[in-house]
Amino acid sequence: MVGIIMGSDSDLPIMEEAIDILESMDIQIEVDIVSAHRTPDKLVKYAKNAHLRGIKVIIAGAGGAAHLPGMVASMSPLPVIGVPIKSRNSIDGWDSVLSILQMPGGVPVATVALNGAKNAGILATQIIGAADNCVLDKIITYKEGLKLKVEQASERVRK
Amino acid sequence: MVGIIMGSDSDLPIMEEAIDILESMDIQIEVDIVSAHRTPDKLVKYAKNAHLRGIKVIIAGAGGAAHLPGMVASMSPLPVIGVPIKSRNSIDGWDSVLSILQMPGGVPVATVALNGAKNAGILATQIIGAADNCVLDKIITYKEGLKLKVEQASERVRK
Amino acid sequence: MVGIIMGSDSDLPIMEEAIDILESMDIQIEVDIVSAHRTPDKLVKYAKNAHLRGIKVIIAGAGGAAHLPGMVASMSPLPVIGVPIKSRNSIDGWDSVLSILQMPGGVPVATVALNGAKNAGILATQIIGAADNCVLDKIITYKEGLKLKVEQASERVRK
Amino acid sequence: MVGIIMGSDSDLPIMEEAIDILESMDIQIEVDIVSAHRTPDKLVKYAKNAHLRGIKVIIAGAGGAAHLPGMVASMSPLPVIGVPIKSRNSIDGWDSVLSILQMPGGVPVATVALNGAKNAGILATQIIGAADNCVLDKIITYKEGLKLKVEQASERVRK
Amino acid sequence: MVGIIMGSDSDLPIMEEAIDILESMDIQIEVDIVSAHRTPDKLVKYAKNAHLRGIKVIIAGAGGAAHLPGMVASMSPLPVIGVPIKSRNSIDGWDSVLSILQMPGGVPVATVALNGAKNAGILATQIIGAADNCVLDKIITYKEGLKLKVEQASERVRK
Amino acid sequence: MVGIIMGSDSDLPIMEEAIDILESMDIQIEVDIVSAHRTPDKLVKYAKNAHLRGIKVIIAGAGGAAHLPGMVASMSPLPVIGVPIKSRNSIDGWDSVLSILQMPGGVPVATVALNGAKNAGILATQIIGAADNCVLDKIITYKEGLKLKVEQASERVRK
Amino acid sequence: MVGIIMGSDSDLPIMEEAIDILESMDIQIEVDIVSAHRTPDKLVKYAKNAHLRGIKVIIAGAGGAAHLPGMVASMSPLPVIGVPIKSRNSIDGWDSVLSILQMPGGVPVATVALNGAKNAGILATQIIGAADNCVLDKIITYKEGLKLKVEQASERVRK
Amino acid sequence: MVGIIMGSDSDLPIMEEAIDILESMDIQIEVDIVSAHRTPDKLVKYAKNAHLRGIKVIIAGAGGAAHLPGMVASMSPLPVIGVPIKSRNSIDGWDSVLSILQMPGGVPVATVALNGAKNAGILATQIIGAADNCVLDKIITYKEGLKLKVEQASERVRK
Repeated sequence: MVGIIMGSDSDLPIMEEAIDILESMDIQIEVDIVSAHRTPDKLVKYAKNAHLRGIKVIIAGAGGAAHLPGMVASMSPLPVIGVPIKSRNSIDGWDSVLSILQMPGGVPVATVALNGAKNAGILATQIIGAADNCVLDKIITYKEGLKLKVEQASERVRK
Repeated sequence: MVGIIMGSDSDLPIMEEAIDILESMDIQIEVDIVSAHRTPDKLVKYAKNAHLRGIKVIIAGAGGAAHLPGMVASMSPLPVIGVPIKSRNSIDGWDSVLSILQMPGGVPVATVALNGAKNAGILATQIIGAADNCVLDKIITYKEGLKLKVEQASERVRK
Repeated sequence: MVGIIMGSDSDLPIMEEAIDILESMDIQIEVDIVSAHRTPDKLVKYAKNAHLRGIKVIIAGAGGAAHLPGMVASMSPLPVIGVPIKSRNSIDGWDSVLSILQMPGGVPVATVALNGAKNAGILATQIIGAADNCVLDKIITYKEGLKLKVEQASERVRK
Repeated sequence: MVGIIMGSDSDLPIMEEAIDILESMDIQIEVDIVSAHRTPDKLVKYAKNAHLRGIKVIIAGAGGAAHLPGMVASMSPLPVIGVPIKSRNSIDGWDSVLSILQMPGGVPVATVALNGAKNAGILATQIIGAADNCVLDKIITYKEGLKLKVEQASERVRK
Repeated sequence: MVGIIMGSDSDLPIMEEAIDILESMDIQIEVDIVSAHRTPDKLVKYAKNAHLRGIKVIIAGAGGAAHLPGMVASMSPLPVIGVPIKSRNSIDGWDSVLSILQMPGGVPVATVALNGAKNAGILATQIIGAADNCVLDKIITYKEGLKLKVEQASERVRK
Repeated sequence: MVGIIMGSDSDLPIMEEAIDILESMDIQIEVDIVSAHRTPDKLVKYAKNAHLRGIKVIIAGAGGAAHLPGMVASMSPLPVIGVPIKSRNSIDGWDSVLSILQMPGGVPVATVALNGAKNAGILATQIIGAADNCVLDKIITYKEGLKLKVEQASERVRK
Repeated sequence: MVGIIMGSDSDLPIMEEAIDILESMDIQIEVDIVSAHRTPDKLVKYAKNAHLRGIKVIIAGAGGAAHLPGMVASMSPLPVIGVPIKSRNSIDGWDSVLSILQMPGGVPVATVALNGAKNAGILATQIIGAADNCVLDKIITYKEGLKLKVEQASERVRK
Repeated sequence: MVGIIMGSDSDLPIMEEAIDILESMDIQIEVDIVSAHRTPDKLVKYAKNAHLRGIKVIIAGAGGAAHLPGMVASMSPLPVIGVPIKSRNSIDGWDSVLSILQMPGGVPVATVALNGAKNAGILATQIIGAADNCVLDKIITYKEGLKLKVEQASERVRK
């Protein structure tokens, strides 16, 4: 249901946070490496067919001059979530953020925070939840869990 | 189906691009001014109830220290799309972008480009289209239209 | 008298500098974790009641898309001091600084330097000192102490 | 009660927003030009004597390498509010913001947004209100007014 | 011999400087609009075939999240020169520069200055000149012309 | 055929990636240290004579206020590739990037990513390949290799 | 006594502020256009001979990838003052500032503010004044004048 | 002859590079800690008297909101060299650089690179050398030494 792709396997440690959260929500996922710059043909095939294969949301992570999320968005009608990754030679992450966020009118990428793969997973769940009350309830439960953790930290600090 | 809010009516000229594109897609919309800093109670009420009133996606535009999208996201289970607006005293738009994009783990905002309200409207349509093939087809048709305009420009330039 | 809140217990090592300086000034403090994004209801309750419980100044620390100080300021008539924290995935602290500093007209946050919790504590003391000569004298004494330390360093260097 | 100073009379159009809001709150003010770089002796005299003359809060506006707020803070025990001004040769306001905000430990400046003189006036009122319930009530009333204006805009937009 | 493409016809006023300089050097050119995001199929076809059609160098101009130069470089063995364009909603040109410059290892784009289409034209000429002494001589002559203009300005100023 | 120069031997660990890739392509290289600021006479001699000695492309790496690539470009008719290096006291690499990229009209430097020496080597190969089909084929083969590596990573990840 | 050079006659309107202040101090000046990138031979000759011709201080203004001040400093033993100019395609002046300021160890450029040609003229006067009490007195008198102007503005504002 | 001051003894490891180079040039120095924010009276006394005590050039190093160089320049007729220091809580050095460099018209600070204390020492020597041929010759000799080191590195690399 959610396709997760990334430009290089060096992005996997970051992108695993998306995988983990989606698995904990029981959302079906499919993970692959698709490089905009090194496997452009695979990119075209992936982007054009994803919605035909039953994918509902695509999460794409990349760093530096990060073209993967935007190029997938240019060829797929599905919502594409972009995860800017602070890769090795990135200039403090600014290149990753700006080359994913600043898409031209007509071709949006839903961008999350730098290295924010976990939030990409939650956003994908919310998108599915927009039409599925069962999944929406999982989000509500998840947010209750966030609150609980803060309350426990609050108690520790006040002591 | 799509709720569009903004922090001030001075944001309306930008946010109208979201309204226009959603109307052209025949998506039902609801527009309001909700200021995180000046009407916090309204913000809380709006965010907590939106999904109960049948809203499926929220688009929130704000500038400067732009807290509206993130605060709505903290209280609603729905997908929230944030539009960073380059308002009058914004520092070149950087404050708007960073205070919407850089949300902590657990509470994503789907951020689009600076002043990218049009893309927010398209993204909202894509989110609805993820579970509605009829809407998905509208996106496919819209993208065909984009291609056509480029091809016409291409012909003019080659002459 | 001074309420100190922060978005996460991971902010505590930084915020302890505010606690320490206020305790050294014999100012009464109250410390808690309040997350704008994970415990929005607690935030509302805290901000609306602080001045009714006898709090005179609020210090709020947060990182990334840091909405805590501004949202407290939107709901409390008290002076709010914001401490931008350079948290783990912050983009070099710029997001923390800009999302606290760049508040819209009508809702100020008294922002101090990145990770400047110590200065937040001193500023809170100065605010109380503005109406309490006894506290003002403590500030004068504290500044004498700063001078003394520089003079001692000066002597060491000149040797 | 509130001293307002600025580095040059070219800063007056911005700083007048602080004057206006404080006058609307019936707070007594005193306005002067004090240049850190061109009248350093006046700066020293001003900063050292302000609290002896009955000033409770100082608002200092300056642009570029903006040293006025920090230098006043170094010599006065009072809370100092700094207004970074985007002056003619400022590099997009970054110099003004950073040279006011990033004060070292021990000497805080309560920094507001770029060109945020209005918020400086409100913050000064809040500081006085911290020990004066009558002034605190004015802030509460002012915030009600902000809410009202948003509600009126909201009604216009919904029509 | 030199293919010049750009993402939108709004880029033409900037890109015309490349056209002009190449025409003045008697280099054969071919100009077209190819949008990475709106005509991805045309992009693929263009990039894969350019070297088969006799193109020796490609100049690609784009703004914002500028993926055109990098995506052409991913599919063509030819040297690709990228021109970052400061388009309407670009964040001061930083997005255009970083999303063209910061290409990953293996797929270079020869990036020139923001709006530097003229230099892109000269660089394309130099690339052809690397293997063609006649073209190299034109560059030498061109540089003599630059010197002459400075000398004339120098004379005017010294008077 | 390709001249590789750098401002200091501390740049060698980065620049070695250019050396390695060019050697793997069987392109003849010549490596030297030429400092714009410490050996300006050598710089002048190098830049003026390179094309007379048979050099076809120059790669110049430098950091901080990086003048080497631009100054070589001012005195040589050859294409000059600039490698911005993130040296010890560089401000996060921004100085290196901007002082190489932002050349004035008339004197281009083909700039690659921060620390992107490997891409400089590939770009130099592509420039030679523009007039030499045998070298062009090596680029095509190299790109096939990039694709293969991604496909292998893809297989590992999908398991 | 003071040599003033700039990279292009388009820099003259800014650099005239240096000329004016030096003439008002009765310092002998010599003005010329010397382009690092378009007249490198003239640059070398200028830099190597300036101290032999009686020049005591060099002021060099340039914008974008501004190499003129640093290259003069590399070939002259004299103090070189650099004026970063915000030229037409400069990225908000950052390129001009960083490519002049961030010189490597061994070759300083005394950098003044963006477009700060007036301050360059004053600094040149101060450098001559370091060894000439008569010129030093002029600086003291000039600073008295600055003070007087602020005092007059102060009187106007207080009324 | 050269006064070297810094805002804190934590700046000493950086500032020692200025001390070392000046001692190697046999220039007489005087080193002290003077904090603009913690010892403002000492700052005033230092700045007003330096030229009366025979100091010819002042080098001032500071980090963060670095006011020391500019405030000394406001009260002394001598040339002041500012060294921006990347101190612990500095935002990547940008605050240090901008608060020293961007001085208003009338009060220059000769700014060197971030952490560029060595260059501050050389610049001070050049300023003294502007009126002292014996010192000028030392600079010429020093530059020969720089050249020699590069030539030795060049030989090593070519082997």
